[in-house]
Amino acid sequence: MNQARIKRVTEQMRRQGLTQILVTSTASIYYLTGFWVEPHERMLALYLDEDGRAVLYGNAIFGLPSTSELPVITHSDGEDPVGHLAAAVRPGALGIDKFWYSKFLIGLLSHRSDVTPVHGSDPVDLCRKCKDDMERAAMCHSSSINDQVMASAISALREGVRENELASLVNRAFLARGADCEGTQLVCFGPNGADPHHSGDGTVLQPGDSVIFDIFTPIGRYWCDMTRTIFYRSAGEKQRQVYELVRRANEAAEKAVRPGILLSELDSIARKIITDGGYGPQFTHRLGHSCGMECHEPPDVSDASHVPLESGMVFSIEPGIYLPGEFGVRIEDLILVTETGYEVLNHYPKDLQIIG
Amino acid sequence: MNQARIKRVTEQMRRQGLTQILVTSTASIYYLTGFWVEPHERMLALYLDEDGRAVLYGNAIFGLPSTSELPVITHSDGEDPVGHLAAAVRPGALGIDKFWYSKFLIGLLSHRSDVTPVHGSDPVDLCRKCKDDMERAAMCHSSSINDQVMASAISALREGVRENELASLVNRAFLARGADCEGTQLVCFGPNGADPHHSGDGTVLQPGDSVIFDIFTPIGRYWCDMTRTIFYRSAGEKQRQVYELVRRANEAAEKAVRPGILLSELDSIARKIITDGGYGPQFTHRLGHSCGMECHEPPDVSDASHVPLESGMVFSIEPGIYLPGEFGVRIEDLILVTETGYEVLNHYPKDLQIIG
Repeated sequence: MNQARIKRVTEQMRRQGLTQILVTSTASIYYLTGFWVEPHERMLALYLDEDGRAVLYGNAIFGLPSTSELPVITHSDGEDPVGHLAAAVRPGALGIDKFWYSKFLIGLLSHRSDVTPVHGSDPVDLCRKCKDDMERAAMCHSSSINDQVMASAISALREGVRENELASLVNRAFLARGADCEGTQLVCFGPNGADPHHSGDGTVLQPGDSVIFDIFTPIGRYWCDMTRTIFYRSAGEKQRQVYELVRRANEAAEKAVRPGILLSELDSIARKIITDGGYGPQFTHRLGHSCGMECHEPPDVSDASHVPLESGMVFSIEPGIYLPGEFGVRIEDLILVTETGYEVLNHYPKDLQIIG
Repeated sequence: MNQARIKRVTEQMRRQGLTQILVTSTASIYYLTGFWVEPHERMLALYLDEDGRAVLYGNAIFGLPSTSELPVITHSDGEDPVGHLAAAVRPGALGIDKFWYSKFLIGLLSHRSDVTPVHGSDPVDLCRKCKDDMERAAMCHSSSINDQVMASAISALREGVRENELASLVNRAFLARGADCEGTQLVCFGPNGADPHHSGDGTVLQPGDSVIFDIFTPIGRYWCDMTRTIFYRSAGEKQRQVYELVRRANEAAEKAVRPGILLSELDSIARKIITDGGYGPQFTHRLGHSCGMECHEPPDVSDASHVPLESGMVFSIEPGIYLPGEFGVRIEDLILVTETGYEVLNHYPKDLQIIG
């Protein structure tokens, strides 16, 4: 148990009027207890009250040891997964972690009509938002690996290559440099780049294609996440114009980062440049997301996110323009907020690049 | 929209007294609409009423086209993701898909205190449980690829190899044969095999190790999932004894498969053999899980799963024995229930094998 973190979480609970919460995300439980468990469809929940009393409820298959500091109450595959938990929570408001499965919440409520579920992730998420020194070092390291892997991926572009070959190459390059696991890397050629979430398939590289590499992985549990768009063989006038607009939006938002400014202001700065350039409707998503032990963490970087920046926050700045049937451009860095300004964690260049 | 499937789902809804449900899993939405969307932390929900009226609610970033058959109502990143949905659902019981995030359910309930959430996955899950001819063919194909990849993985065992190298090799072998993506493959050497969920790390192969390969991937959206345990260089008396016990449990449960028998009976058959052999407490998990467009689907194969087998069901039979600090053994096949019995979808041999 990390008692210093527990204490910060309970302070946040008091500030928000929460007397009890269920922490259920793998990363949040790890953050507080040191146990990393991916429960998949099985039940795992850390009950925490405002005095810092913690009890972990989970399936016996996870093999977690019970201690006096952190009692572990287990159930087996055949048992009601929320039975013990339902017997233990107090009446009234119960903060629920955002991604807990509804099947467990509905099960809990069916036992306990005197419990009112409320949003309960903030106490932990607000602590996780500002990375401590160890976490900052881990994220700098991950992003420096990402710079290397991006260089490998871009240098592997050649006639006939398929998106999923490059995605596989990116995974291998990450693993060889210490990544925790393989994942779905986004590699998009030409028109595929107009879908912000396209993942690498059998599409073959064509001369004149834009190529989006949006690559990310956890290394030592902390994620990197970077996007570069480059051009294969040639770049037309429209491609160049769109690229420069996105680059300007990315750089202007990054330069504005400092403690006190709102995340929503960063979104506005980037969005105004793209809108003034005539592509506002084609910038279809938020500017970015926070990042840490999960690739996407709250708070997000959107026009609705009126959260002032604080030292230690790490988030992406990733404006994009998507032209269905034609191509897409996205440029993304991770940014660390420092006491006086910011540090860009990615160093792979952003000048327009034509390969091959 | 697959109207035949919608009709079967609404029949199930009536049988269960549900007048409205929210379908939110990627695979279930695909099963009914043909749209495959992985929403990650964003909101996507298919509202379905007992007359088969369907409306899809989701983030605009998914780019889903609205039609008269399936109206799509979108929100942007900055908007309340459940606002439109809250305005549309009827008072009373609302079936909720099992893995919907609590943050959305709590958001919905904060708008609508006249709505009571109830378990709502069964109508779709009961339809998905029995695979149709196309689905059976897809699963046979996936498992035949798995046989090939298992053979490649086992033949790659050699002095000095690390678990995560083999996991990466398995992913590449799957991809080369048409897998949809890469994933976390379970490769466990020696004592690591005593953790049923250990995933491949930097552990180096040692003579005398048991080696568990639990490998799985979707191919054409349908999963394969197979486990084999083999021995490197030698197998001691205890390893042989435990192996044969697990193999007998696996084979006895498989031979009992036929329409009408209960899933829980299969669990009992395997568990009795392992218990009689003296290792009951070391068989720490359910016998298996159903499989289809998700690797783990309901119903599970456990002592609590009193579900009679029907033709078209596909599930795993995967008994295991886990000896902390020593080794583990697990043997898993996917089984298809046929009109008169069963078909084992995996053909990689299960005789005790010593390699190297």
